[in-house]
Amino acid sequence: MTTGLDPAAGDWWRTAVSEVAPNRIRYRGYPVEQLIGRVSFVETAWLLLRGELPGAGQARLLEAALVAAADHGPQAPSIAAARMAATCGVGLNSAVATGVNLLGDVHGGAGQQCMQVLDGVRHRVAAGEDLGAVVAAVLAEHRSRRAFVPGFGHRFHRRDPRRDPLLALLSAAVDEGVVGGGHLAVLLEFERQLADRAGAAVPVNIDGITAAIYCELGFPPELGRGLFVLSRSVGILAHAWEETEGAGRIKGPLPPSYVAPYVGPDVRDLPAEHGGPA
Amino acid sequence: MTTGLDPAAGDWWRTAVSEVAPNRIRYRGYPVEQLIGRVSFVETAWLLLRGELPGAGQARLLEAALVAAADHGPQAPSIAAARMAATCGVGLNSAVATGVNLLGDVHGGAGQQCMQVLDGVRHRVAAGEDLGAVVAAVLAEHRSRRAFVPGFGHRFHRRDPRRDPLLALLSAAVDEGVVGGGHLAVLLEFERQLADRAGAAVPVNIDGITAAIYCELGFPPELGRGLFVLSRSVGILAHAWEETEGAGRIKGPLPPSYVAPYVGPDVRDLPAEHGGPA
Amino acid sequence: MTTGLDPAAGDWWRTAVSEVAPNRIRYRGYPVEQLIGRVSFVETAWLLLRGELPGAGQARLLEAALVAAADHGPQAPSIAAARMAATCGVGLNSAVATGVNLLGDVHGGAGQQCMQVLDGVRHRVAAGEDLGAVVAAVLAEHRSRRAFVPGFGHRFHRRDPRRDPLLALLSAAVDEGVVGGGHLAVLLEFERQLADRAGAAVPVNIDGITAAIYCELGFPPELGRGLFVLSRSVGILAHAWEETEGAGRIKGPLPPSYVAPYVGPDVRDLPAEHGGPA
Amino acid sequence: MTTGLDPAAGDWWRTAVSEVAPNRIRYRGYPVEQLIGRVSFVETAWLLLRGELPGAGQARLLEAALVAAADHGPQAPSIAAARMAATCGVGLNSAVATGVNLLGDVHGGAGQQCMQVLDGVRHRVAAGEDLGAVVAAVLAEHRSRRAFVPGFGHRFHRRDPRRDPLLALLSAAVDEGVVGGGHLAVLLEFERQLADRAGAAVPVNIDGITAAIYCELGFPPELGRGLFVLSRSVGILAHAWEETEGAGRIKGPLPPSYVAPYVGPDVRDLPAEHGGPA
Repeated sequence: MTTGLDPAAGDWWRTAVSEVAPNRIRYRGYPVEQLIGRVSFVETAWLLLRGELPGAGQARLLEAALVAAADHGPQAPSIAAARMAATCGVGLNSAVATGVNLLGDVHGGAGQQCMQVLDGVRHRVAAGEDLGAVVAAVLAEHRSRRAFVPGFGHRFHRRDPRRDPLLALLSAAVDEGVVGGGHLAVLLEFERQLADRAGAAVPVNIDGITAAIYCELGFPPELGRGLFVLSRSVGILAHAWEETEGAGRIKGPLPPSYVAPYVGPDVRDLPAEHGGPA
Repeated sequence: MTTGLDPAAGDWWRTAVSEVAPNRIRYRGYPVEQLIGRVSFVETAWLLLRGELPGAGQARLLEAALVAAADHGPQAPSIAAARMAATCGVGLNSAVATGVNLLGDVHGGAGQQCMQVLDGVRHRVAAGEDLGAVVAAVLAEHRSRRAFVPGFGHRFHRRDPRRDPLLALLSAAVDEGVVGGGHLAVLLEFERQLADRAGAAVPVNIDGITAAIYCELGFPPELGRGLFVLSRSVGILAHAWEETEGAGRIKGPLPPSYVAPYVGPDVRDLPAEHGGPA
Repeated sequence: MTTGLDPAAGDWWRTAVSEVAPNRIRYRGYPVEQLIGRVSFVETAWLLLRGELPGAGQARLLEAALVAAADHGPQAPSIAAARMAATCGVGLNSAVATGVNLLGDVHGGAGQQCMQVLDGVRHRVAAGEDLGAVVAAVLAEHRSRRAFVPGFGHRFHRRDPRRDPLLALLSAAVDEGVVGGGHLAVLLEFERQLADRAGAAVPVNIDGITAAIYCELGFPPELGRGLFVLSRSVGILAHAWEETEGAGRIKGPLPPSYVAPYVGPDVRDLPAEHGGPA
Repeated sequence: MTTGLDPAAGDWWRTAVSEVAPNRIRYRGYPVEQLIGRVSFVETAWLLLRGELPGAGQARLLEAALVAAADHGPQAPSIAAARMAATCGVGLNSAVATGVNLLGDVHGGAGQQCMQVLDGVRHRVAAGEDLGAVVAAVLAEHRSRRAFVPGFGHRFHRRDPRRDPLLALLSAAVDEGVVGGGHLAVLLEFERQLADRAGAAVPVNIDGITAAIYCELGFPPELGRGLFVLSRSVGILAHAWEETEGAGRIKGPLPPSYVAPYVGPDVRDLPAEHGGPA
């Protein structure tokens, strides 16, 4: 084994995540043989992402958030695309990759964006500003450009069934001192002001409540997307696998008896200069 | 909401994985609000993939296997590709998808293939054949086509540090009646015969031991790949994230000061019929 | 620039495709500045894939085949997945990658498989066997395992409109000595015998006729898939772009008013050992 | 075939790109059987993307730009990732998708960003502002935030060999009235002012010159990325194929004899509360 790399190439692939050498595998310094059987998969994810193991209360919160977002059915394009991929003659890995690839800024980004909003308000409050006033200003700014505040409301669920149990867990974690509670306070102030304005409630959705959890646990916003990817990978895998077990070959978005409505130009001849009929 | 779909399209996206309707999310029949805080992320994965919740001993085994395979450093092409993707201006989801997509038949398939071998021997033994004789026949067949038996030996580790702790957990699970032990017996018989033949040991590697665990837990071989994908997603995410936090832009496989050695034709003029110099 | 690489790393990224060094870019030895404006995009693809420039007749045939397969509408899962990706907040590159990734063994493999069949028959005929007898044997073998011969028939088109013009171009190329005609003869013999057997015709489809063209042009079967990927990339790009220009956000496979029919277990309580109601 | 779709689902997959119905395939209204053999692959791409066929001069310019960017060797992460994918046991389609997926905002976005800059200046000049003054202002704005103007300079080529021949073709097209020349003037003014400032030249690179061509041809900036994807797909395919033909299995970024330098925490025991040694 070459440990003394060419100086020019030496540092190119350096990493602090894991140490892999002959007969040696260590995650952030911990020998893998000590981890196996002693820490959970979610604790391992935390360790690899953050560098240290989580406390028990932190791991419980993260576990709950990952469970909550694991699936939302084949109406989601990520799930539908993975199911179609599974019928096209690619491996299960490529089907999962297809779904994961679709968790972009729009499909997978609301949580990340909500974390940025919560972080921003939290910093201003920590610097001495009034929580209610800052939230009101952020809401006004969103309204002025006709944008939704990410993390609230749902095109499908009037009241997201995942809100209450996650909120209860997060509140309990604040009470127990597992997390500080600053981001949760921001989240609830948004919900309160949105309800006042909207007449009807625009409650926290799954993106909002997991955003608050991830912020409280100290994850940066971009990793919020990463955690959603990890969580939804499970649903994507389960749906791709269900489709694999079916008999279908090359499953399009609609049954084969449908034809996509065509709304372009009517049939026409090729122009003469391209060899069309004179 | 349209629940009475057009008969032709109605069944096209049906699923038994989850039920999603306004204000209702159920995984395999369980309301998500009951699952949150009560079942682990790994139990949720089992539920969505298999249809029922695992027992505590089953969940422990699966958890250990997923921890063991979560990372193997940037020498792995899946990790390296995800790290490079993270520098190219795509989201963290696309970086993870890049890595997952590479866990194909070769990179991610050894476990799946080992499960097929173990299953095949297991069925023959269950039908009355002698374990030692069947394993010997399978080994002879592999040797005759100069193929390695998947799941044994490692180009890197003489003795894979993940073997012993996973084997201990699996053996304990057999003793406790959590799993039957038939596949484990097949695995160990392969290892014994390979050691006899090879003089030096060719011990079970991570693919072999996780294959035995997944077989014992009742997963079909193809899902073995799926579980490896889920496990390694964590390492892929952690490495992509570490690269994201770095300052690099457009990271190629070697430092920019290197040029790829070119071994094709020497410089030449375009032929005259393509407009080259006369 | 390091041209004398570390001996251990030196050959790792060597290539005969292109030479790239400071102020120098050569495709297979030809300086890029000579190619620009003188050779077509399709000739460049041939050069990079094969090592030499094609003759004019060869380039014309390849061009026609690539035009013919460029699009087949959003019923194709590759197109549909790319369109959905385009609404999810990923770049156009990731939308195209999503579609291309789905051109697997089933969706994109029929041409490649047909090339293998044509090559196999061609070799046996070249070795002295009778064309009609070999084709009959291959058909019998497919029937015995209830398999379709790849490249014939279409679930959608009774008579594929791309068959006749491509067949005419290929036949003309044989007459002009551009290609040999051996693979075309095999293709037509299959079509003849399938018509005899089936009563009704089971004509050559796009996969079959492009397979014959690619075989005649000397491409190996696996590259047949590669050429299909290149061709369909254009349709994938055009559809992803059309969707990008639309106003939709997160487009699932069916309008949001639909819910996917759920066919799994009825609602149920979590078992007591997982913390469910006693 | 169902042509009268359920009204709710009817418009969901409508398209103006192509019409596909039994025995009918039309690209933007043109029957595919008329296109085959008469229009080139690049003209087909233009037709599908833009809705109308290009003139001969337009097609020539687009063809040259696509040839110029087709490959830049395995130092590019897109090429390297595709080559690694080809060794991992995925189809050629998935290897190409891997490479294409990496052509993100950073790796594939400079051309698109340059098009935005050129378009912006062009609009201001068309509205009556002075070209030199607007360019100077844009340069000053970039300098103030320490940003490079996309499309100029190259970390590798002091003078990009693709600049001169593409510039000559574009200038000729302006002279012949094929395109208007407004964007080219902006591009050259940037180059002139950058040379003045820098002392040494910071010449137009491949992204800059293709950006001017695509702008002159009327493509929107986002499609600039799409055209680069199409172009580079050829190089990605050629490199993935070269790797496929090699003997390697699971090719990482460095030869197996290298180990990635580990820079994280030293080896440590698991904490006692996670079951580590007391």
